[in-house]
Amino acid sequence: MINKEEITSWFKTLQENICSQIGTVDGRNFGRDEWIREKGGGGITRVLQNGEIIEKGGVAFSAVSGTLPENIKKALNISGSEFYATGVSCIMHPVSPMIPIIHMNVRYFETSGENGPGAKWFGGGIDLTPHYVNQEDAKVFHRTLQHVCDVHDKSYYPEFKKWADDYFYIPHRKETRGIGGIFFDKLVPNEKKSIEQLFEFVKSVGESFAPLYIHIINKNRNLNFNDQHKKWQLLRRGRYVEFNLVYDKGTKFGLETDGRTESILMSLPPKAQWLYDFVPEKLSLEEETLELLRKGIDWSGTV
Amino acid sequence: MINKEEITSWFKTLQENICSQIGTVDGRNFGRDEWIREKGGGGITRVLQNGEIIEKGGVAFSAVSGTLPENIKKALNISGSEFYATGVSCIMHPVSPMIPIIHMNVRYFETSGENGPGAKWFGGGIDLTPHYVNQEDAKVFHRTLQHVCDVHDKSYYPEFKKWADDYFYIPHRKETRGIGGIFFDKLVPNEKKSIEQLFEFVKSVGESFAPLYIHIINKNRNLNFNDQHKKWQLLRRGRYVEFNLVYDKGTKFGLETDGRTESILMSLPPKAQWLYDFVPEKLSLEEETLELLRKGIDWSGTV
Repeated sequence: MINKEEITSWFKTLQENICSQIGTVDGRNFGRDEWIREKGGGGITRVLQNGEIIEKGGVAFSAVSGTLPENIKKALNISGSEFYATGVSCIMHPVSPMIPIIHMNVRYFETSGENGPGAKWFGGGIDLTPHYVNQEDAKVFHRTLQHVCDVHDKSYYPEFKKWADDYFYIPHRKETRGIGGIFFDKLVPNEKKSIEQLFEFVKSVGESFAPLYIHIINKNRNLNFNDQHKKWQLLRRGRYVEFNLVYDKGTKFGLETDGRTESILMSLPPKAQWLYDFVPEKLSLEEETLELLRKGIDWSGTV
Repeated sequence: MINKEEITSWFKTLQENICSQIGTVDGRNFGRDEWIREKGGGGITRVLQNGEIIEKGGVAFSAVSGTLPENIKKALNISGSEFYATGVSCIMHPVSPMIPIIHMNVRYFETSGENGPGAKWFGGGIDLTPHYVNQEDAKVFHRTLQHVCDVHDKSYYPEFKKWADDYFYIPHRKETRGIGGIFFDKLVPNEKKSIEQLFEFVKSVGESFAPLYIHIINKNRNLNFNDQHKKWQLLRRGRYVEFNLVYDKGTKFGLETDGRTESILMSLPPKAQWLYDFVPEKLSLEEETLELLRKGIDWSGTV
């Protein structure tokens, strides 16, 4: 049976591969910070800033272990006290407002069982946040994710697409963060799916990220943009900050459990902007994008 | 006995006075948005953007009423269900990094009693967030607040100064938001202080704000600054965003109770920046400021 060492090692390689692929397209390499967690484990945070394509991008690997606080044990409804958590998180803020922001995460969590076997599960997802929604890109993006899912289980895409719509939502703005994607959590091995099968799915998600984003980059990298587009990009990045600091569970958990702040907050954009009560012009591309930031849109045209 | 109508009316006038005083110094007037709350009450939000001195500043008045949700009643430990809340909040993000960000709030809250009299209390505070700490300004700022407090009660300044240090703190950065000031909440009338006396104190706090900030503006408005200073300002504004979205109770409460988003988030800076793992140069003014962002500094030199 697959064990946490193999999963960890695969995640570490995934980080290397993503940095290498995105770094090649950008022309600039990701930096590398290794850090150790006092209470057990550590990580490698790789960040690229002021690249040709990527204004700020981060790919973080971590593998940490320790004792779960009582309140988290209760919230997770598990018995074991010793946990192990590993994952890769990545986020890219491009220079061009014509290229979308993207986020990907794959993670594995297990606890030692005190009475019987402990808990084990996978989680993850990919979601896209265009500054300007391009419906053709949205279709390719969602169809690719659907294909990635379908190979493993036909029920995954519809379920995880809805989960992403619900998760990446900003209630106080009544807007989704972007055009969604897939999101899943607590995929536990059971009679239908072995841990190996779940891991194969998670691997497919992780591996699909770089080629998919590179396709979107190449399709849009030569589009012109002006100050008006840049201003809108900074406003959309402001929404990204609002989502991450107010609602994102990973960010909240990291900050509350005294995680490495710079690794947690590498997801924040290089620059962002807030204007009071900004309303886009009627019939503008900005207004059109706002109207598409809602749940339940069938982007792939196949659900 | 003073009633909520008189308090509300005074708060409304305070908003007008602050906008008039700051607007005169800036040379540009605050805009004005009146809004109505579906469930009862409403407010006036006044914002100035792209001024000569103020890049983005807001002064918000609101007076809302309604029925308290059970969980909030419990959290506040009060019996009455019908509440009335009024206040003025203001925040200024200056153009120049040599002028500090400032925040002031005064508020009044009461509930109808079901058995016996309801709850009534005042809260408020003023705190300063310099991009570059100037110890002389810090001294004047704290001494002024101390004087404002001392006139009403000698115990106020030491207590409320400590409260501000504890409240305006960013745990994940291990930094205070700025150099603090005063913060107080749930000042209830009792045998020592009548509601009139408490109101007089709150009035003094509200009235001290504009002249104090204008003094600091005028002292620093002609200082030169360059791109390096601007960059640091945007980074410090990033911290301001982190505090407001992750920790500020007023912001959280507003967003959770479906308040008017644009009025709640008018406190966010016009532009902000996040760089991965930015560390200021040794012995720089930026490093010196960072070292002064901690609790327990006796800025007034008199505690």
